[in-house]
Amino acid sequence: MKENKPNETKVVVLGGLGEVGKNMYCVMHKDDIVIIDAGISFPESDLLGVDYVLPDFTFLKENEDKIRALLITHGHEDHIGAIPFLLNQINLPAIYAPNQAKELIAVKLEDRNIRYDNLFVYTEETKLTFGEIEIEFFRTTHSIPDSHGISIKTPNGRIVTTGDFKLDLTPIGPMADLYKMATLGHDGVDLLISDSTNALNEGYSASESKVDGALGEMFERCKNNRIIIATFASNIYRLKHIFETCYKHNRKICIFGRSMENNINISIKGGYINHKELLVSPEEANTLKPNEVTILCTGSQGEPLAALSRISNGTHRQIKLRPDDVVIFSSSAIPGNALSISKTINKLYINGVKVYTNTALADLHTSGHANEDELKLMIRLLNPKYLMPFHGDYRMLKKHANIGIDCGIPKENTFVLKNGDSLSLVNHVITKSNSMPGEDIYVDGNRIGEIGGAVLKDRQMMARDGILVVIINVDMKHHELLIKPNITTRGFILINENEELLKKIEEKAENILRKELADQHSNFASIKTNLTTELYSYISKLTGRNPIILPIIIDIKKEVQTEV
Amino acid sequence: MKENKPNETKVVVLGGLGEVGKNMYCVMHKDDIVIIDAGISFPESDLLGVDYVLPDFTFLKENEDKIRALLITHGHEDHIGAIPFLLNQINLPAIYAPNQAKELIAVKLEDRNIRYDNLFVYTEETKLTFGEIEIEFFRTTHSIPDSHGISIKTPNGRIVTTGDFKLDLTPIGPMADLYKMATLGHDGVDLLISDSTNALNEGYSASESKVDGALGEMFERCKNNRIIIATFASNIYRLKHIFETCYKHNRKICIFGRSMENNINISIKGGYINHKELLVSPEEANTLKPNEVTILCTGSQGEPLAALSRISNGTHRQIKLRPDDVVIFSSSAIPGNALSISKTINKLYINGVKVYTNTALADLHTSGHANEDELKLMIRLLNPKYLMPFHGDYRMLKKHANIGIDCGIPKENTFVLKNGDSLSLVNHVITKSNSMPGEDIYVDGNRIGEIGGAVLKDRQMMARDGILVVIINVDMKHHELLIKPNITTRGFILINENEELLKKIEEKAENILRKELADQHSNFASIKTNLTTELYSYISKLTGRNPIILPIIIDIKKEVQTEV
Repeated sequence: MKENKPNETKVVVLGGLGEVGKNMYCVMHKDDIVIIDAGISFPESDLLGVDYVLPDFTFLKENEDKIRALLITHGHEDHIGAIPFLLNQINLPAIYAPNQAKELIAVKLEDRNIRYDNLFVYTEETKLTFGEIEIEFFRTTHSIPDSHGISIKTPNGRIVTTGDFKLDLTPIGPMADLYKMATLGHDGVDLLISDSTNALNEGYSASESKVDGALGEMFERCKNNRIIIATFASNIYRLKHIFETCYKHNRKICIFGRSMENNINISIKGGYINHKELLVSPEEANTLKPNEVTILCTGSQGEPLAALSRISNGTHRQIKLRPDDVVIFSSSAIPGNALSISKTINKLYINGVKVYTNTALADLHTSGHANEDELKLMIRLLNPKYLMPFHGDYRMLKKHANIGIDCGIPKENTFVLKNGDSLSLVNHVITKSNSMPGEDIYVDGNRIGEIGGAVLKDRQMMARDGILVVIINVDMKHHELLIKPNITTRGFILINENEELLKKIEEKAENILRKELADQHSNFASIKTNLTTELYSYISKLTGRNPIILPIIIDIKKEVQTEV
Repeated sequence: MKENKPNETKVVVLGGLGEVGKNMYCVMHKDDIVIIDAGISFPESDLLGVDYVLPDFTFLKENEDKIRALLITHGHEDHIGAIPFLLNQINLPAIYAPNQAKELIAVKLEDRNIRYDNLFVYTEETKLTFGEIEIEFFRTTHSIPDSHGISIKTPNGRIVTTGDFKLDLTPIGPMADLYKMATLGHDGVDLLISDSTNALNEGYSASESKVDGALGEMFERCKNNRIIIATFASNIYRLKHIFETCYKHNRKICIFGRSMENNINISIKGGYINHKELLVSPEEANTLKPNEVTILCTGSQGEPLAALSRISNGTHRQIKLRPDDVVIFSSSAIPGNALSISKTINKLYINGVKVYTNTALADLHTSGHANEDELKLMIRLLNPKYLMPFHGDYRMLKKHANIGIDCGIPKENTFVLKNGDSLSLVNHVITKSNSMPGEDIYVDGNRIGEIGGAVLKDRQMMARDGILVVIINVDMKHHELLIKPNITTRGFILINENEELLKKIEEKAENILRKELADQHSNFASIKTNLTTELYSYISKLTGRNPIILPIIIDIKKEVQTEV
């Protein structure tokens, strides 16, 4: 890696570009590094068996001695989810997070038995200094309380990052600090790093207050029904106004779903959600009249194991649907989930239940991210010289760059980058710099980064057509097949119902083996290769399926050596 | 199964209810059965490795001697795709299809080397009689030419089925025969079986002519660019107006994608698409100027192997993207495909290409199915006594039933049924009748119905965490482990990079086995069970993964018997 120029400030992006998820980047000035956010993302469906995807920590490991702090913008998983993995791999002197995020991080560390004593809360008043790097925070609006932007001032210029935000002018929680943003803009911002998630959406996003109103009307309309609401567990403001609506309508609240419970408990503790007294147990909920209770649950994306899916299936142990129930989806479909949501809704319909989803007319959900006009407003407030769109796939980043250009930022001052890219800031001038490792790191079970392409390819083959294990007993010294090969399978065919087919395959395997063994030059390797190739093509023709073929050769006479 | 009443007419549904796909139903009067359509559906993502889903043919097999004909409404896969499988399983005296469908069926049978001499074309003039069943056809509008509804008259009353339709008042092809529908309605329709696919969409669907206009404008706007259009290969009218637009704009056409080529060839042959002379080879296309050629391809759903995906990846051998290319998606996202479409668009953007997709403003696509108001119009034209919504999931069927009720059909005369259900028509009165087998039958490779739950479950486990094969050499007579157990894996971990982990697991396996063998009552079965259980829990704790564990025990001394 190229040595940094002595007085250069660098921005290194480890995650969050070309994707919506695993946000992580850092600013390095001389020997000081501050990291901003440490998120995970969830794997796409072709990453079979992968649980999470992490940013690549290589750059941080190589510069571990320079790391001063991790600063968290807000408490969503794509900004805090990688913290336990980061703490296991590098020595992190401090984490600064706003209150709600700090509580969520604390629970996360406790769940994983990680003791960490340097987790601190910042407020909008906090100022931090690391070497020549000066940090300030400003309040924004998002779907979780205590979301902040960060100003990072260095001798080379000022970098401002928005974190995830919308500019809700009638928010449920406190207003964004427009004055502080405008002041930063007035004082001079060199680089703005801004949230691109909804850059493709025109206009201005709907306010949470509008959803609040719509939910209120829905409660009025369904005043005789039991109401079941599914929403994102991470949308704390939504949960807050559901609590307040229930309070107004004299309804108790029963919660289903672990992430929902966690978030609500933390939010009650932090004072973000009031009316704790409304909470009732499932047992109590079942004794209440329909108009006395609201069920608040996870599963708005049709996730098969979430509470709403189990309720709609009739497999939930504590809640059974009643024909006069009303189910409200206070959510929108995350791309890729349309089918599973549709399945859940169908099951609810089959149970005779009324279902309301968010439509253009219904206002039962709004996103926590800024639309085009809000992105413009952010650019106008902060008035940056350079723009780096962040937190979005390529199309969103590109659109956001064009939005910046529309607001007067020169095209050459917009940077559409990819993970691992870096920028160099020297005396208020920014150039693209060298690239670092910026791979996706997979977590499967409790093991990190061990899922190579070969393992995923095997999983894909077995997912499609299963595996066929051929057990071969030979005496290699005499090149003799001792007994007929024996085949067992998983995920290929039902063994009991296909004995004839298996017999055919075994006979074919026997023929191949006898032919191979007749060749005195044959050995373990050649037998394996030829058996696999010939049997693969035979089975493919016979069945149209291509299972993995795994030959296991046991050389009996040669003092019982097993070769796999 | 209950014996049919002697003069009863029965409608038996084999597929197409509670789903969008594999449409198939039949009408039986006395000893005569006519089948309407024989479609496949494509498996949902959790049906790992399944290629197609077929309707359950059990009822037809049991009544094979009564089957007189299969009538096809139109040539889409979800109406004709099951024909080869049906012909392999039952003796079918005749298939009647409209011209375009007949050509598609003929290619399908040829592809599979099935010789069938009783495939006949019907037109809107054709009348057929099978025993006391009288058949007439009427022209509708849909996204493929020659779509028809069918009137099935029996001594008990008249059944009319719409097939897939919209009521496009300015269609690209011929107008639907409103007069014939109105006349049938005037003469008396007892049961209407009608297409529910878009029952959830309000109002009236946009006409294909509107798309035609929008595409024309797009060609005007991009007159200096090479245009790449992705659309559904099955949407023949769309292909037709793309050909005509290219003709007007002096552009040659180069086609990519096998299904696209098939459909276009058949449509040219049938006279549905003109200007065959516009077709050029990929080689010729590459020599033309950008404004002289249009590339027409599959892949509008982001299917990984389709032409557009390969073009966007840069892995297409014949077409490379140029920065001034324009890509038009003349399509909409089928639920479940949003992510893969988004991936394709991002790759196109990364290549610097302009992309246009269908939006509320763009009119680059319209569905071939009727919206709510068209369903009402169909009901008003045919004026049925009873309504059976068809071709849709439960929510769509239910909504369609409500649309019928809005049009004056008594609620108790609407039937929201499921596959396998049947109706009984006696002297113009319809009641729900007994149910038949109506399962989903899976096709994987060339084998039908052999994928049981166990096989799918194994595939799911292996997809997530792979398989671990434990080879055990024992002398069961002396209860002695001859050598240490040997482990090999697929899809679990990279073997080479995890030798230490594998060694640990092998040691654990050895301990379990020694303990087991020390018990003189242990046998193959108990060793297998206990090894699997204990090793599963050990590996789960150690790695967080739960691979399938497959023990293979080889009893060496006992005259080399292999037990799996």
